[in-house]
Amino acid sequence: MTQQQNLIFNSLKQVEASKLFQGGVIAIIVLSALTTGAKTYNLPTVFEHVLEGLDTAITFFFLVEILLRFIVHDNKKRFFLDGWNIFDTLVVVGSLIPLQNADAVLIGRLLRIFRVLRLVSVIPDLRFLINSLFKAIPRMGYIAVLMFIIFYIYAAIGSLFFHSINEVLWGDVTISMLTLFRVATFEDWTDVMYETMDTYPLSWIYYLTFIFLTAFVFLNMMVGAILEVMSAEQNAREQASAHKERADMAEQIQALQHKVDILIERLK
Amino acid sequence: MTQQQNLIFNSLKQVEASKLFQGGVIAIIVLSALTTGAKTYNLPTVFEHVLEGLDTAITFFFLVEILLRFIVHDNKKRFFLDGWNIFDTLVVVGSLIPLQNADAVLIGRLLRIFRVLRLVSVIPDLRFLINSLFKAIPRMGYIAVLMFIIFYIYAAIGSLFFHSINEVLWGDVTISMLTLFRVATFEDWTDVMYETMDTYPLSWIYYLTFIFLTAFVFLNMMVGAILEVMSAEQNAREQASAHKERADMAEQIQALQHKVDILIERLK
Amino acid sequence: MTQQQNLIFNSLKQVEASKLFQGGVIAIIVLSALTTGAKTYNLPTVFEHVLEGLDTAITFFFLVEILLRFIVHDNKKRFFLDGWNIFDTLVVVGSLIPLQNADAVLIGRLLRIFRVLRLVSVIPDLRFLINSLFKAIPRMGYIAVLMFIIFYIYAAIGSLFFHSINEVLWGDVTISMLTLFRVATFEDWTDVMYETMDTYPLSWIYYLTFIFLTAFVFLNMMVGAILEVMSAEQNAREQASAHKERADMAEQIQALQHKVDILIERLK
Amino acid sequence: MTQQQNLIFNSLKQVEASKLFQGGVIAIIVLSALTTGAKTYNLPTVFEHVLEGLDTAITFFFLVEILLRFIVHDNKKRFFLDGWNIFDTLVVVGSLIPLQNADAVLIGRLLRIFRVLRLVSVIPDLRFLINSLFKAIPRMGYIAVLMFIIFYIYAAIGSLFFHSINEVLWGDVTISMLTLFRVATFEDWTDVMYETMDTYPLSWIYYLTFIFLTAFVFLNMMVGAILEVMSAEQNAREQASAHKERADMAEQIQALQHKVDILIERLK
Repeated sequence: MTQQQNLIFNSLKQVEASKLFQGGVIAIIVLSALTTGAKTYNLPTVFEHVLEGLDTAITFFFLVEILLRFIVHDNKKRFFLDGWNIFDTLVVVGSLIPLQNADAVLIGRLLRIFRVLRLVSVIPDLRFLINSLFKAIPRMGYIAVLMFIIFYIYAAIGSLFFHSINEVLWGDVTISMLTLFRVATFEDWTDVMYETMDTYPLSWIYYLTFIFLTAFVFLNMMVGAILEVMSAEQNAREQASAHKERADMAEQIQALQHKVDILIERLK
Repeated sequence: MTQQQNLIFNSLKQVEASKLFQGGVIAIIVLSALTTGAKTYNLPTVFEHVLEGLDTAITFFFLVEILLRFIVHDNKKRFFLDGWNIFDTLVVVGSLIPLQNADAVLIGRLLRIFRVLRLVSVIPDLRFLINSLFKAIPRMGYIAVLMFIIFYIYAAIGSLFFHSINEVLWGDVTISMLTLFRVATFEDWTDVMYETMDTYPLSWIYYLTFIFLTAFVFLNMMVGAILEVMSAEQNAREQASAHKERADMAEQIQALQHKVDILIERLK
Repeated sequence: MTQQQNLIFNSLKQVEASKLFQGGVIAIIVLSALTTGAKTYNLPTVFEHVLEGLDTAITFFFLVEILLRFIVHDNKKRFFLDGWNIFDTLVVVGSLIPLQNADAVLIGRLLRIFRVLRLVSVIPDLRFLINSLFKAIPRMGYIAVLMFIIFYIYAAIGSLFFHSINEVLWGDVTISMLTLFRVATFEDWTDVMYETMDTYPLSWIYYLTFIFLTAFVFLNMMVGAILEVMSAEQNAREQASAHKERADMAEQIQALQHKVDILIERLK
Repeated sequence: MTQQQNLIFNSLKQVEASKLFQGGVIAIIVLSALTTGAKTYNLPTVFEHVLEGLDTAITFFFLVEILLRFIVHDNKKRFFLDGWNIFDTLVVVGSLIPLQNADAVLIGRLLRIFRVLRLVSVIPDLRFLINSLFKAIPRMGYIAVLMFIIFYIYAAIGSLFFHSINEVLWGDVTISMLTLFRVATFEDWTDVMYETMDTYPLSWIYYLTFIFLTAFVFLNMMVGAILEVMSAEQNAREQASAHKERADMAEQIQALQHKVDILIERLK
């Protein structure tokens, strides 16, 4: 790298790290979101042309921004190891594809909608929040498997018995699971129940056991989630506090030992 | 200030601080609330005139009370730095505006309704509660931004795909967000889903992922809120307890050190 | 009291404290509950006569039981200071009133229904549970007042603006509060909203702020409740643990001091 | 046992404990679940024959697997003391019963559905999860009794007063309890309320007190559940931490005592 190149590189780096540039990027992302939002309204043609021009400008800005971020990145290889960078690149590059047929237009508009998510990749606090949410997923893993088993068994039973009563709600095991999810959200679940109770008067047992099971498992999941996060956090805090306490004590006791050592020395 | 003025000032201060006066203010606020409530009923004309008289009396009482509180306040400038005092003054002064046209009558009635909120400014426990609730807002800030992003993306997608199915529910991005809030509260959400499933049979994926995302983020928000308050409170408690323990120990060890010092002195 | 009376008194006391008697009372209460439940079915006349006979027998048994409990109670005056005893007596004595007219029959049946609550007064664990629930009420006091203020303000505003739209839902402040409670439980709340949005297109702000406010206050109430119970429990536990630790340490340090005292003694 | 038998026994044991075999069993259980799910769809006859063949193969595999597990189990008697083994055996043996009439076919299909639950008995993490959920049941015992009493009393009152208004909702005490459960899930509860309010305008008190009571008891139950699990877990953790701290201190103090002992020895 010549010195001049180095100079340009450093000034680019300064630009990329500046608060003004970061703020500008956030502003453009919000503008991009507003643009996609505005497109859902019925607007006069003039305004739609303005929006299209704006969209092209935003796409170009994002392209420049991502190129800048790539250029100033110290390690080009590690740039694409960060999931957020890959996401940003995909969304921006995807927006460049010319919209020729209906499908391409749809995909293009979807990509433009996902550009709002770039807010998460740009604002560090949101990035931290998302990462901490991702960390919470595995702790719910086995509970999710258990929930799925409960849903599957009840759906299979439901579709076995109620199949002939209402094809739309209990037609096959997939539809039955959707119906059971509806029951789990208490959405007009009594309508579903009263219908099957006409044929099987005891079918309320089926619904009540299902509701109790899912609610019970969900409640325990929540309790478990609260506990797990709490114990992890508290453990760290407690150990730190205990450590400080012990260190303070140990210091005082060592001072004592030192004095006793002096005594032993004198009595030799 | 002459001595006589001082005397009046002090007796006014005593009146303002007396339990009787505070109780009287609370009673008048409750009466004011009942008056605004009573006005929503269809009452005989005689009774309505009584209510109007009562309303004038209450407004006058509030005016006197706020003037009294202002007069006895030690620092006149700081009086208006307290948000509750500004609120009280606005509500009371607002009630004085003569109700000439329909708009003024509406604003006047609204201000009279908000007079119930004066209960919060007068009862210290409620004031403390509200202040602690306000403190809880920032900790939900970024979670709220994240929630809004989720709603916005889903609303944009929903309005892109379902626009032609139901104009009332998915007309533009704002209406779609309202519809999604409805889905998030499980309010007849299956009706919304079944309608779009006729055109896009796989659109249940859209609703289920949305429900899981919002519920998951909400759950984590709740867990986070519980943890944050808890750790703050516990930290304080734990440090106090650890401090006491350490202090007790240190005292005993110092006594020991003193004795060993005596020993060292003797062996000189 | 003669010795014979004393003998009878003691044997009665033994009977009252025996597990068999306690179990018998619980069985009779459950039977009484089943009897009141059975009466809600359409039964053949023969069976209804059996139920009436059973009811008389149960009432008589309860009367004997409460008399027995009163006789063996050590302090007759304190017997009626216990709320549960008063409740038991009222329910049992109330069942003795002859059912002559329609009103008396209704009250008699209501009293018989409340006899199930005697289970709580007889089973100590349930009694303990109820007492601990009662203890939880005051901590929710001010939050309840705040909630009521929120409901009242929104109800007054709702009845002011929506009065002319739907008399059944927003007729006066009481009905509006009921409607708002319905909105707070998410029960067909969009139907209520869509109706007012026809006249006031921005009235969704009213509903959304109301839902957010109540949900936010409720969430904080829950967090507060969890914290309060927890800190009380934990404080006790922590102090106990800290105390034990300190006591152990102090013992060891005292042993040390004793040894150093010996040293000082020897060096005199 | 001859040496050759012993050799076979050991190799069987190795097979049963191998990760490949365990994985195979899980795969077959999932396949079995998919088969029962597939049967709920309308399939061409050819495919149905394939499913039946697959079903026979799965049943045979499960039979072999359970026999293998029984053979390699060290203590044959204790094999049937484990609830999961009994469950596995019942489900597998039940699948062997020839399906001759309609009832047998239904029971056979039900048993095949319950085969999914074998996942829980085979995956240790799920088994652990279920066991911990079972442990959570007793702590909710008395709360459940209390809830039932509340439901029973309200159902009896409801059926007493509203019997004549709507036979379908308030016909007898059982139906009333189902209706109240519906009210507790907020499912179209206002429809139920508005209907009875036509006859008894004050019946909203009945519904609101019921909702508050159940919500209040439920909230306290949840708080209690969180606390109980937490205190149990934390107690263990705290004691361990306190123990370590004390042990460290004691060691240091003992070193001090040893040195003082040397001093005392020297001064003899």
